[in-house]
Amino acid sequence: MSRRPTIADVAKLAGVSRATVSFVLNNRPGVAQETQERVRSAAGELGWAPSRSARALSTGRARAVGLVLTREPELIGTDPFYPAFMAGIEAVISETGNGLMLQISRPGSEVDTYRRLSSDRRVDGVFLTDLRVDDSRPALVAELGLPAVAVGSVEAGAGLPAINLDDRPAVRDAVRHLVGLGHRDIAYVAGPDEFVHARRRRQAWADALAEAGLREGTLLPGGFTAEGGARATRMLLDQPTPPTAIVYGNDLSATAGMAVAQDSGLRLPEDLSVVGFDDVPLASYTSPPLTTCRANPFSWGRASAQALVELIETGTTADMELEPAALVVRGSTGPVPDRKAV
Amino acid sequence: MSRRPTIADVAKLAGVSRATVSFVLNNRPGVAQETQERVRSAAGELGWAPSRSARALSTGRARAVGLVLTREPELIGTDPFYPAFMAGIEAVISETGNGLMLQISRPGSEVDTYRRLSSDRRVDGVFLTDLRVDDSRPALVAELGLPAVAVGSVEAGAGLPAINLDDRPAVRDAVRHLVGLGHRDIAYVAGPDEFVHARRRRQAWADALAEAGLREGTLLPGGFTAEGGARATRMLLDQPTPPTAIVYGNDLSATAGMAVAQDSGLRLPEDLSVVGFDDVPLASYTSPPLTTCRANPFSWGRASAQALVELIETGTTADMELEPAALVVRGSTGPVPDRKAV
Repeated sequence: MSRRPTIADVAKLAGVSRATVSFVLNNRPGVAQETQERVRSAAGELGWAPSRSARALSTGRARAVGLVLTREPELIGTDPFYPAFMAGIEAVISETGNGLMLQISRPGSEVDTYRRLSSDRRVDGVFLTDLRVDDSRPALVAELGLPAVAVGSVEAGAGLPAINLDDRPAVRDAVRHLVGLGHRDIAYVAGPDEFVHARRRRQAWADALAEAGLREGTLLPGGFTAEGGARATRMLLDQPTPPTAIVYGNDLSATAGMAVAQDSGLRLPEDLSVVGFDDVPLASYTSPPLTTCRANPFSWGRASAQALVELIETGTTADMELEPAALVVRGSTGPVPDRKAV
Repeated sequence: MSRRPTIADVAKLAGVSRATVSFVLNNRPGVAQETQERVRSAAGELGWAPSRSARALSTGRARAVGLVLTREPELIGTDPFYPAFMAGIEAVISETGNGLMLQISRPGSEVDTYRRLSSDRRVDGVFLTDLRVDDSRPALVAELGLPAVAVGSVEAGAGLPAINLDDRPAVRDAVRHLVGLGHRDIAYVAGPDEFVHARRRRQAWADALAEAGLREGTLLPGGFTAEGGARATRMLLDQPTPPTAIVYGNDLSATAGMAVAQDSGLRLPEDLSVVGFDDVPLASYTSPPLTTCRANPFSWGRASAQALVELIETGTTADMELEPAALVVRGSTGPVPDRKAV
């Protein structure tokens, strides 16, 4: 090798990530003894040592990573994603002695929150979650020089390293599952359209209908809330010809929708099939148990934290594609009702 | 007044909290103009100014408050309390420019986590939540000189300022409500006994049965989880004479218990009455809607943050008792079934 060796070369030779190399060479805890030896031996073999500037970066650190949640504080508690996602982050950063600085920002003051985090040197880097269409944050963190990873798709991350977990295969499989059960009229109750992930789930439903040669289905907003899911379900069931199946943007709206359908006298899944998204702990225990899409926010948080730590330690990290969400079939979906028999 | 005026005197004269005085005199945002003027005028009238030592404290601050959650990271996502509680904290501290440093600690390394937060000066103070019987943390934070408020009862806080929201009146009212409906056999599915709040809810149920002159009811552990609630419900329903009503430690276990009962062919509330605790967003939308106990973790977080900020700013804060949890009667409770008629 004629060029100077890089941390990537050491990582490749040792068969570990660049973050692990950095952890070992900076004497951070949490790396197995055997791995440490492999890294040191690879570094020795290549004659590699952390550069002075990388070492300089290691000092004067905030030793904290930041997560800004932009929504009304009152609404945070209804989302099952964040607690598990944050737990995944903690599982990584607690090993490295970092803390998680959490800030809840109202929609109007988001930019100020990031600016303050950066100017006060409260954090060494941030996670950008809930990516929005035409999101202004990638440009903002670039301007601030604040290391950041996008928790979402490469396109939405606008040039930032992106850690993605694709929702779409699970939603597509849900529609295929319903089509296989004879359903032809499959409605969708969507999350807020400003969020990239809400749009992608909704688009996956529309694409799968088209793929099956079915006409466009009814689409209603459900806001990812219990109240929104209940309201949309009432509207769908009040139609002259209600859908025989409803796919919801998340489990909270789906579970509320199930209750509305049951209250109106429908039997599930005999009269109506229902699919959610999230696989919350309760999903196995609704009556009937909820067919839903299982993502893994804990592993998403873990991978995002590994990437952000690597970015902070080494100045670079790669895009990563996690195992996509998967359909979990339970009792809330069944064969299409025979309407002529009713 | 012959003695030197204190911040408490200013607060009393202005009719505001000590924290508000401190906010105004330190030019923090978020206090109404009219209140600011009242505080400044009261301080002027009494000739009071923040002491040099209090000012010194104001500098060199971490400007962050800490929350350590001690549990397996995988289990954080199932608890509806923390997201709302943290949102309440944020609603206060974001006004003062503070951040919330969140650490998730495994049960064995909790002491280390607090020691590191303190020695690294990562936070100016901490919230102690999930208070346990014979909790070692009040002594630990005293040793570390780390300002702390206990989120729970005065007894459990062991000398720390305690911000409490009493669960017991709601549970007692739930039992009285069931007794009024003719129930005599009222079981309880409890949260983990190591937590003071789980014990207090369970004790409130037992006390209310005794107060009504009823014999001891059946008590089973439910772990505050869906799985635990389902398992306990199966055991209760398998008894030769099952209870006619079940009170659960939280909504998650109650909702799972409802599904188990319905799966076994029972109608709710005709054959079995069910009560939860939390009033999660979904509770209004289960089928039937869940009778439950409504606490307010958002306001609890807000009050705890106000107290901790006051403690950090002024060196002292008072115990506070919030409005207790209240019973919310919905469709999952009804008259006792007439067993002779079955």
